[in-house]
Amino acid sequence: MSLIILIIATLFTTAQLSDNDMNDPRRTLNLMPLPAELETTGGVFELDSTFAVGFETEPTRRLVNGVNRFMHRMGGRTGIFFDHPHLTKETRVESPKLVISIKREGMLVLEEDESYRLTISPGRINLEAETDIGALYGLETLIQLLNTDRGGYIFPGVTVTDAPRFPWRGLMIDAARHFMPVDVIKRNLDGMLAMKLNVFHWHLTEDQGFRVESRVFPELHRQGSDGFYYTQEQIRDVIAYAADRGIRVVPEFDIPGHTTSWFVGHPELASERRRYEIERRFGIMDPTMDPTREEVYDFLDRFLGEMAALFPDNYMHIGGDEVTGVHWMENERIRRFMEEREMEGHRDLQAYFNNRVLAILQKHGKIMVGWEEILHEEMPKNIVIQSWYGRDSMIEAARGGYQSILSNGYYIDLIQPTDVHYVNNPLPPDSPLTDDEKKLILGGEATMWSEFVSPETIDSRIWPRMAAIAEVYWSEDVPTVNLPQRGRETVIPADMLTPEIRSMIADMYRRLDVISLQIEEHGLTHIRNYEVLLRRLVNGYETGRLRTLVDVIEPVKIYRRPAQRVYTSHSPLTRVVDAARPDAKVARDFRELVRVFLEEGATDVQKKAEIRRQLEMWRDNHQQLLPVIRRSPILEEIRPLSEKLSQLSELGLTALDLIGSDRFQDREWMALRMQQIENARQPHGQTEIMITTAIEKLLLKVPN
Amino acid sequence: MSLIILIIATLFTTAQLSDNDMNDPRRTLNLMPLPAELETTGGVFELDSTFAVGFETEPTRRLVNGVNRFMHRMGGRTGIFFDHPHLTKETRVESPKLVISIKREGMLVLEEDESYRLTISPGRINLEAETDIGALYGLETLIQLLNTDRGGYIFPGVTVTDAPRFPWRGLMIDAARHFMPVDVIKRNLDGMLAMKLNVFHWHLTEDQGFRVESRVFPELHRQGSDGFYYTQEQIRDVIAYAADRGIRVVPEFDIPGHTTSWFVGHPELASERRRYEIERRFGIMDPTMDPTREEVYDFLDRFLGEMAALFPDNYMHIGGDEVTGVHWMENERIRRFMEEREMEGHRDLQAYFNNRVLAILQKHGKIMVGWEEILHEEMPKNIVIQSWYGRDSMIEAARGGYQSILSNGYYIDLIQPTDVHYVNNPLPPDSPLTDDEKKLILGGEATMWSEFVSPETIDSRIWPRMAAIAEVYWSEDVPTVNLPQRGRETVIPADMLTPEIRSMIADMYRRLDVISLQIEEHGLTHIRNYEVLLRRLVNGYETGRLRTLVDVIEPVKIYRRPAQRVYTSHSPLTRVVDAARPDAKVARDFRELVRVFLEEGATDVQKKAEIRRQLEMWRDNHQQLLPVIRRSPILEEIRPLSEKLSQLSELGLTALDLIGSDRFQDREWMALRMQQIENARQPHGQTEIMITTAIEKLLLKVPN
Repeated sequence: MSLIILIIATLFTTAQLSDNDMNDPRRTLNLMPLPAELETTGGVFELDSTFAVGFETEPTRRLVNGVNRFMHRMGGRTGIFFDHPHLTKETRVESPKLVISIKREGMLVLEEDESYRLTISPGRINLEAETDIGALYGLETLIQLLNTDRGGYIFPGVTVTDAPRFPWRGLMIDAARHFMPVDVIKRNLDGMLAMKLNVFHWHLTEDQGFRVESRVFPELHRQGSDGFYYTQEQIRDVIAYAADRGIRVVPEFDIPGHTTSWFVGHPELASERRRYEIERRFGIMDPTMDPTREEVYDFLDRFLGEMAALFPDNYMHIGGDEVTGVHWMENERIRRFMEEREMEGHRDLQAYFNNRVLAILQKHGKIMVGWEEILHEEMPKNIVIQSWYGRDSMIEAARGGYQSILSNGYYIDLIQPTDVHYVNNPLPPDSPLTDDEKKLILGGEATMWSEFVSPETIDSRIWPRMAAIAEVYWSEDVPTVNLPQRGRETVIPADMLTPEIRSMIADMYRRLDVISLQIEEHGLTHIRNYEVLLRRLVNGYETGRLRTLVDVIEPVKIYRRPAQRVYTSHSPLTRVVDAARPDAKVARDFRELVRVFLEEGATDVQKKAEIRRQLEMWRDNHQQLLPVIRRSPILEEIRPLSEKLSQLSELGLTALDLIGSDRFQDREWMALRMQQIENARQPHGQTEIMITTAIEKLLLKVPN
Repeated sequence: MSLIILIIATLFTTAQLSDNDMNDPRRTLNLMPLPAELETTGGVFELDSTFAVGFETEPTRRLVNGVNRFMHRMGGRTGIFFDHPHLTKETRVESPKLVISIKREGMLVLEEDESYRLTISPGRINLEAETDIGALYGLETLIQLLNTDRGGYIFPGVTVTDAPRFPWRGLMIDAARHFMPVDVIKRNLDGMLAMKLNVFHWHLTEDQGFRVESRVFPELHRQGSDGFYYTQEQIRDVIAYAADRGIRVVPEFDIPGHTTSWFVGHPELASERRRYEIERRFGIMDPTMDPTREEVYDFLDRFLGEMAALFPDNYMHIGGDEVTGVHWMENERIRRFMEEREMEGHRDLQAYFNNRVLAILQKHGKIMVGWEEILHEEMPKNIVIQSWYGRDSMIEAARGGYQSILSNGYYIDLIQPTDVHYVNNPLPPDSPLTDDEKKLILGGEATMWSEFVSPETIDSRIWPRMAAIAEVYWSEDVPTVNLPQRGRETVIPADMLTPEIRSMIADMYRRLDVISLQIEEHGLTHIRNYEVLLRRLVNGYETGRLRTLVDVIEPVKIYRRPAQRVYTSHSPLTRVVDAARPDAKVARDFRELVRVFLEEGATDVQKKAEIRRQLEMWRDNHQQLLPVIRRSPILEEIRPLSEKLSQLSELGLTALDLIGSDRFQDREWMALRMQQIENARQPHGQTEIMITTAIEKLLLKVPN
């Protein structure tokens, strides 16, 4: 037995972790999100074609489907022709190797039991759960444990006891600004289940498009969508697909602002009476529903009633964000309405509107969710606040007795690096909330706003970063850093990183790499479409030179992209900025290499050689990329960036030669070079070089 | 002006062509399928953000949608933020640069006018067509003409006058043996339009699955599909999507054989009365409808009536292939029925059945299409014969007065190389048919049977080979080679290749490379999923070593794959054989290099060095691939292939050293090495090395 254990032990990749973490066996496996408890029991389960699943209790349809998908993926990864690759509810396997027992079908409601217990021993695996949803999670953990030894595929002998930290673990996809076809949604639902996420928040209406078929008011989708909307059959199909994966679908109909597309077919709902066209630009627009007219509530009653029947979830999201109030204040009748009711500003009018909508939702059996702007002293406590702009609104909501969901700090459309999201603990150890207030924090949701993504690129903005965020929602064992500007950082300040947090982040990145690759099997395109975009950009198959550059650049962060160029919903999303990926790994690894090299006193010969090798490659890349740029005018915009990368690398090489030498440089020398560094920080084509600070660090070590 | 022409001239990649072809300007552009006429007129059209489309005549909705897709792709390729990226039927562009005029909306019927005329001059492009379908084709030609010069993007000044050779240009997808979700179908429809294909033949029912919702007989899809079927709304959606692209949808309901999945819900239709389950194996099965019972025709009348209303095309395909007759002959009542009617064998009974079905189809307004087995003297002339097993049936059909479609020689599931399909001219110059008989040949259809493809791999089996086949259906200017075993060749015998045919094939491959890359923009996965499969196989990001091997191997051809291993519909399709691509380019280029090198007398030093470089790389790859194989048991099966590639390359290097030397080798030496060559031809993991014959050729030049 001990030999086998030894072999297994060498198989698990390990990262540099502090002694304490190193003893945690979870850190030696490739699990994400980290389970609550894991114990190694020794031995391995060896996989062959007789591997088959059986049920100790009557399986639900969801569980049978889940097992069939599991077996299909197992076949896909191992190439094994299983004897029982596919089960029906009637199938009885003679001697199953994996035995599943559940107590009941899980309900798609908040606080459903999602726990499971997985026991792997040689020749036998047991998976027990209260609900079939818990069992699905157990299967996801099991497939992450799939490993190899010299003889073939195995599962290590472990016992996993697991349950989530938060009951609301969500991903919001904005399918309105850019329409996302059903297949995009479905593959992301598969990715969500793999990461034990359980709420798909579907942002369905916007100024730029009304994306759901309404049979009651068909002019909404007919005139508001350019033909790009989900039919009710498609909606039902997606809901069933999600339900099969233990995922709730919470639809959002954003009102009273963000509603231009509604007004194309129904201008009578608007505060300003005129003809409307679908909005093509992005930003915060003034068109807003008129909260003073009863017909608007009649309309909403019928429309939301239709949607309440279509979407079975208990919750419905009414948006409520970014209401400018301009069209209200410009309308004399509306102003009078406000004066008569002694409203002090447009926020009061919105609270009035929200209360009316709340009554409608309640009539249709739904709990209201809205963005933090709906928080208002006039609102009752039975609504859910989604904090996005600042985390304070979550605190304020909880103190006010409201349930809330944290999205601030999880805006994945802002292209922040993974670790910035990862250290954003909704309830950090020093949370100012009382225990009772903490219970009001339901969980978190990452938001994928779609101004700058197409079906071709959206996956690369969601994954793999979403997986690390999912861990924050699921697991207790995540690091906390209280960042100064919550939700706006593009880097964690070095002085806030303790060795322990550093090692937890390093371990997260290690596991993220593995997971990112695994979820490709669901059809997710976050890895594969990178080369597709590069090929189109160079108009050929040889992407190497361009890739060398794009591997170390990223799109500009936060809201700088629209600030640098005016986009509409028909602007191309096929430029270098769209190919470039968030949290560029090559650049990140280089930064880490330089950091450790300098921290260790800049004496490690191997690290120095590796830094030099990289810098020489980047230095020489520009000349080789130039002919590619000449053949592809679309690349012209990043020519300066390519040149600057070359110059930066030259600078880095110079610094590398001087560090540790006795050749002191004067202030002028340094100032000139710092000027170059600053210059290299300037974006081109809305992208920026991600190794500039590392080069700066090298320079600062030059004797002077 | 002359300077600009000079610049343009240097931009067009040219292949080695005979003098005659070299004068044809179509051979200097990247067009596929080749248009009927193209004239260069000098000058270029320069593209900028003011490029916009206008209509001289009232545009149809199909044309407006087509123009919007065209502009979207233009933006995607150039990155230009166009002023008018999106039109509605109401949009009026002030000064359009591309002006389209059509006479009328095209009908989705056989022999519809699909011609167009495209005139590009500096500052102005005109596109004229009889129908909007012709205009769509003109747009496809135009976007293939997109090119660059130093200043930016341009179209060359040309006039194209174009129309198709055959009116029926099809692709059949078998969505029954492996279900293909709607997004797979849609992206392939886009690829079809890009190649001016106009018939999507949808194979919807099989022993392994019944893939269409029937509201009249819902147990068909409920019990016959494992839940994987198209709803009628999805069918309508696909038909509308195809219609928007000028593509007819011809559904196939394969009867009376290939019907096991029908019988799960409706055993009363079967010749053998028993319980049926969905068939999981592949092959020719005995379950067959009972043609002797009136209830079967009542059923078919109602079912095909429902389908006739769902699918608007004039044609309906009833399959009719591979009826074994076993269950008929085993049934005494059926035998008696045949005896009473003096039928001589089961083919007569099938003809009786087909005539009954024909009456049903005619009642519902449909023209019958069937595989060649339906050809029978009892059948009237108003049916269409699809020749698949042999080309003779096409000749026979035409001589008998039947219209026909050629699929023999276009079986893309058999993994033959592109050129074998490309030289398969339906009506070669030496065709034995009279002019009147030739008119009965409607065109061709490639068939994508799905025993061995999943949604992940199917595109790589269709594309890019389909594009070359599309050229055969569209263009008059294609080569003809009368291969000895039509439809079964894995290579064109060298002695059948004249220099002219060689140059036409070389030019086809040159253009195919360009087109293959361009159609990625439709979401086709034929290029991108190669790396996805390799990543999964190595369980990591570093695929280089495995890729070096898989770049020169191919799946075994024709029907050898199922002969070597028993597959079911749940067998994994993620092994090396599934990653390996038909007509592996690296191997093909190497074979061509060796051929030219030897033909030129084996003296070209550069070519020799290039051959050596490649052989050394392959020789050394095995040692570097071994640790990868050790980590991934799924790769174990191709270990011998990797080793043989190394040994073959070693052999090739030895031969290269000896060729032209005076070191004569004896017969024994040669025999031993020829033995090694034979050994290397043996497949492993259902794949084979594609450079073996090239090495053999080198060896045969060794002095002996």
